Amino acid sequence: MTIKNFDQLEAHLSQTTTRKRVAIVWAEDESTQFAAARALKAGFIEAIFIGCQEQLRQLDALKPYADHITYIQADEKDQAAATAVQMAKTGQVDIIMKGLINTDNLLKAVLNKETGILPKGNVLTHVTTAHIPNYDRLLLFTDAAVIPCPTREQRIEQVKYIAQLSRAMGVQEPKIALIHCTEKVNEKHFPFTVEYRELAQMAADGAFGPCIVDGPLDIKTACNLHSMETKGIKSPIHGEANAVIFPDIQAGNVFYKTLTLWAGAQTAGILQGPLVPVVTPSRSDSTECKFYSLAVAAML
Amino acid sequence: MTIKNFDQLEAHLSQTTTRKRVAIVWAEDESTQFAAARALKAGFIEAIFIGCQEQLRQLDALKPYADHITYIQADEKDQAAATAVQMAKTGQVDIIMKGLINTDNLLKAVLNKETGILPKGNVLTHVTTAHIPNYDRLLLFTDAAVIPCPTREQRIEQVKYIAQLSRAMGVQEPKIALIHCTEKVNEKHFPFTVEYRELAQMAADGAFGPCIVDGPLDIKTACNLHSMETKGIKSPIHGEANAVIFPDIQAGNVFYKTLTLWAGAQTAGILQGPLVPVVTPSRSDSTECKFYSLAVAAML
Repeated sequence: MTIKNFDQLEAHLSQTTTRKRVAIVWAEDESTQFAAARALKAGFIEAIFIGCQEQLRQLDALKPYADHITYIQADEKDQAAATAVQMAKTGQVDIIMKGLINTDNLLKAVLNKETGILPKGNVLTHVTTAHIPNYDRLLLFTDAAVIPCPTREQRIEQVKYIAQLSRAMGVQEPKIALIHCTEKVNEKHFPFTVEYRELAQMAADGAFGPCIVDGPLDIKTACNLHSMETKGIKSPIHGEANAVIFPDIQAGNVFYKTLTLWAGAQTAGILQGPLVPVVTPSRSDSTECKFYSLAVAAML
Repeated sequence: MTIKNFDQLEAHLSQTTTRKRVAIVWAEDESTQFAAARALKAGFIEAIFIGCQEQLRQLDALKPYADHITYIQADEKDQAAATAVQMAKTGQVDIIMKGLINTDNLLKAVLNKETGILPKGNVLTHVTTAHIPNYDRLLLFTDAAVIPCPTREQRIEQVKYIAQLSRAMGVQEPKIALIHCTEKVNEKHFPFTVEYRELAQMAADGAFGPCIVDGPLDIKTACNLHSMETKGIKSPIHGEANAVIFPDIQAGNVFYKTLTLWAGAQTAGILQGPLVPVVTPSRSDSTECKFYSLAVAAML
């Protein structure tokens, strides 16, 4: 079943019988607590709260789900992060979620060369899943938050991860567009457009599993058939991209913020690349955004 | 009077008594013809049609405005472009507008080192004026179309032009935000953020006339006070930017296309830098967009 919006995602996860084990690091803030409670209610996680246990044990919102909650002692935030990462490394948790700890501090533990969980050759990249009113499918995109300007190798990993996540969300053969401001390859000013053609060929050769990759395409051509036809462009993306890769963090970040500020989009964000997906919402994100982020991570 | 949307812009121009002289290059397409007719009806242009005169003389839409129309013979498109540029150079027209000619061909005439109209030291940059539902003012931004990755000197010119256009639109002291994905200066990965601080200082020192420049700011912080306050950012932009400068064409282009595809925005685009503003809408732009572009150019 293809998940087309966040309601369908929640309904789907409510019906699954397996639970993902989620290490929740320093859940001192209400929105993290309520996001976890909602996932416990839907029945798709086992919550392992690391730190803040005295506070959490008192919470009415969590009491009904005591059978599916474990509390682990941690005296301070960095220690909680290290414990979560160590549990992921030893296969004891399937997802790491950030509570009230700075993302940088959590990532320091994730990326630690000796004790961390980013396998050699993997790349840490941020993938957003967006529900945009008037778009008939979820749109996945990378990278609004982590990699400033992807190298060829990093972009290959980004395509791999986003194809994997799209399929996990039920899209059998995801259409992945490589974004540029036009459809023209321009080696002189935009050398990455040459790499785009190479990535499309790699995809056609099966390097990323079932998926269709094409580019350079602009975001409008990638997501709107009418724009594609008006411009006289032919692309197997067909104006119905399931996922898009942005050329740099500036474009990805502007896209993310414009969607949420002015297009009424709902979003979920996860980090891919580490042994387990890592959910690192901003402090200011809503309970809903944190819940959806956890839900998307649970699909992997 | 501050122009806050395109209706106000049209109303304002309908009341002015002066007319801008507009060279319209090869107006073979309906949307250019109707945009010109609407501007003639509103009474703020004298139209100088270069090329296509047999066709244009037959048009009912233009007949009522014959007193304010001049036709100039041109056998082919490049010749029409050269004539328009030559008329701008000799002070005979105030605006150049593109009809059915490739933008590249028109720009070749504009940028010609000997016969063109880009003064030494000036920079050709694309400025969009957007009306976004739920934003209480017009938002000007650069550059979605021309400069791939502005140098320090190019960015200084961009601030200068956009401040000038904002003031021409009636904003006495425009707030101009310099966009980045965060509010942190990061010399290592994003050297332009250091230049941003320098631009803010130049503005404070009066280099750009009356205006407030600040950055790095993200697009959401720049245009939404609540986001600014949630993040604990202090900025004189105060979440109410009149204009934003994007770090590169990728970010500007994604912004432009996301606004029009998913945020219901109306836009107008002009090129600043040459002796006269140049209006170069896409072939696929609506009559309305072409009219608004001409209207914005007429404010300069």
